[in-house]
Amino acid sequence: MKRIESTKNPKVKEIKKLHKRKEREKSGLFLIEGDHALTEAVRSQAWIEEIFIEEHKEWPQVFNEIPTPATEVTESVMKEISSTETPKNIVAVCRIPEFSNVKSGGYSFFVLVDSIQDPGNLGTIIRTVDALGKGVVVLGTGTVDAYNEKVVRATQGSLFHVPVLQEDLGEWLEWLQETDIPCFGTSLDEGTSYSALEPQPYFALIIGNEGAGVQKKWLERTDQNLYIPIPGQAESLNAAVSAGILLYHLKQTDW
Amino acid sequence: MKRIESTKNPKVKEIKKLHKRKEREKSGLFLIEGDHALTEAVRSQAWIEEIFIEEHKEWPQVFNEIPTPATEVTESVMKEISSTETPKNIVAVCRIPEFSNVKSGGYSFFVLVDSIQDPGNLGTIIRTVDALGKGVVVLGTGTVDAYNEKVVRATQGSLFHVPVLQEDLGEWLEWLQETDIPCFGTSLDEGTSYSALEPQPYFALIIGNEGAGVQKKWLERTDQNLYIPIPGQAESLNAAVSAGILLYHLKQTDW
Repeated sequence: MKRIESTKNPKVKEIKKLHKRKEREKSGLFLIEGDHALTEAVRSQAWIEEIFIEEHKEWPQVFNEIPTPATEVTESVMKEISSTETPKNIVAVCRIPEFSNVKSGGYSFFVLVDSIQDPGNLGTIIRTVDALGKGVVVLGTGTVDAYNEKVVRATQGSLFHVPVLQEDLGEWLEWLQETDIPCFGTSLDEGTSYSALEPQPYFALIIGNEGAGVQKKWLERTDQNLYIPIPGQAESLNAAVSAGILLYHLKQTDW
Repeated sequence: MKRIESTKNPKVKEIKKLHKRKEREKSGLFLIEGDHALTEAVRSQAWIEEIFIEEHKEWPQVFNEIPTPATEVTESVMKEISSTETPKNIVAVCRIPEFSNVKSGGYSFFVLVDSIQDPGNLGTIIRTVDALGKGVVVLGTGTVDAYNEKVVRATQGSLFHVPVLQEDLGEWLEWLQETDIPCFGTSLDEGTSYSALEPQPYFALIIGNEGAGVQKKWLERTDQNLYIPIPGQAESLNAAVSAGILLYHLKQTDW
């Protein structure tokens, strides 16, 4: 096994670059950390470019099927390349998955994300879409990068299952209208209570920024806007919780 | 206005103690940070013991109604007493709210929390309970402290509205049975799909640990256990999202 002992090794610098969105976009690569994320990547036949494992860590058996050779690193090198304060002993460089033809009919719902800022919220939304299956996530301008380490962690492996695209929401709204797929906006108090709506075989849902909600310019172009009733005292619900309630309601069939 | 310039000031040490659970429990005090949290505390008539504000920060007008005198502190003192990397310029010491008679009939649902570890998840669950109104949260052994700063932040002020108790879940299950309030456990795959269940005027719901779920010893003592169908590839849903879907389904009336 190859081995890196010095934090000055040029490879270390190269990996650390991937903590930056710009570098991820340029290279098409991102980092995953920990056994669970790597297991999901392997199961999903993700393209794993390189693996770095901390010395003395036991090599998990499930990884024997990975053809990628691993490099052993010291504790201090692992600390340097990991994004967490307590590193998970294993870091892998992965290629950002590409999904084509998401508009060709294999998917039944589309979540349009308008400026979600919190990585945990975005990751959790992607995880919920994965739980429902056959969904696509479209990230509009101003949304946190899906390959940010905190998002990756919160998705719990779902990034390898769900198409996540960075595209113009305006163009998507046009396409939805052309194809007669109903598009629902979300609002704190305008529109229809979600519970009045029947489950939908095909739909799109716009989820908005944590503070400001969905931009008015998008709300004006939806088929209908939905709100979640808040009979109690909280001003609003968490964005990922709202998405979960709405998506499970809209997808609900006789499970 | 009083003023603290040195991080060595004994007051600074006293405040910092409240970052520890043990000290919060001993003193009955906890910290809140930022304008939003303080505004919610004031609106909820919370007992605010002391306020510390960073020099040069504008005093928000809404706080004029607070009788508590504020102490001005330097930037370095604020950094020392704040729990966040980018302090929010205002920190207040609050008394942990006490709620009595939660079993006397004014509340319609009870969320029993079994070993939730992630502060963001617990805070978000408390926020969802507050959104629905008339709910109580009971924290079983092994659950993160509700007055941990990260929980406080995620509740977005709801800690002042919702009774949050640290009590024995076993005793609660006994009480629920005696009073004929139906108690639902949650499981990944055992029991009934939640969507088959009608909304309930009164109920209790047990939410489990992020990895291990609800302990078997509790699942055996419920009236019914519920699962949320996962037709897609994700292994599970986020705990706060699950709680949101279930609570909104169970409370759903003709809003």
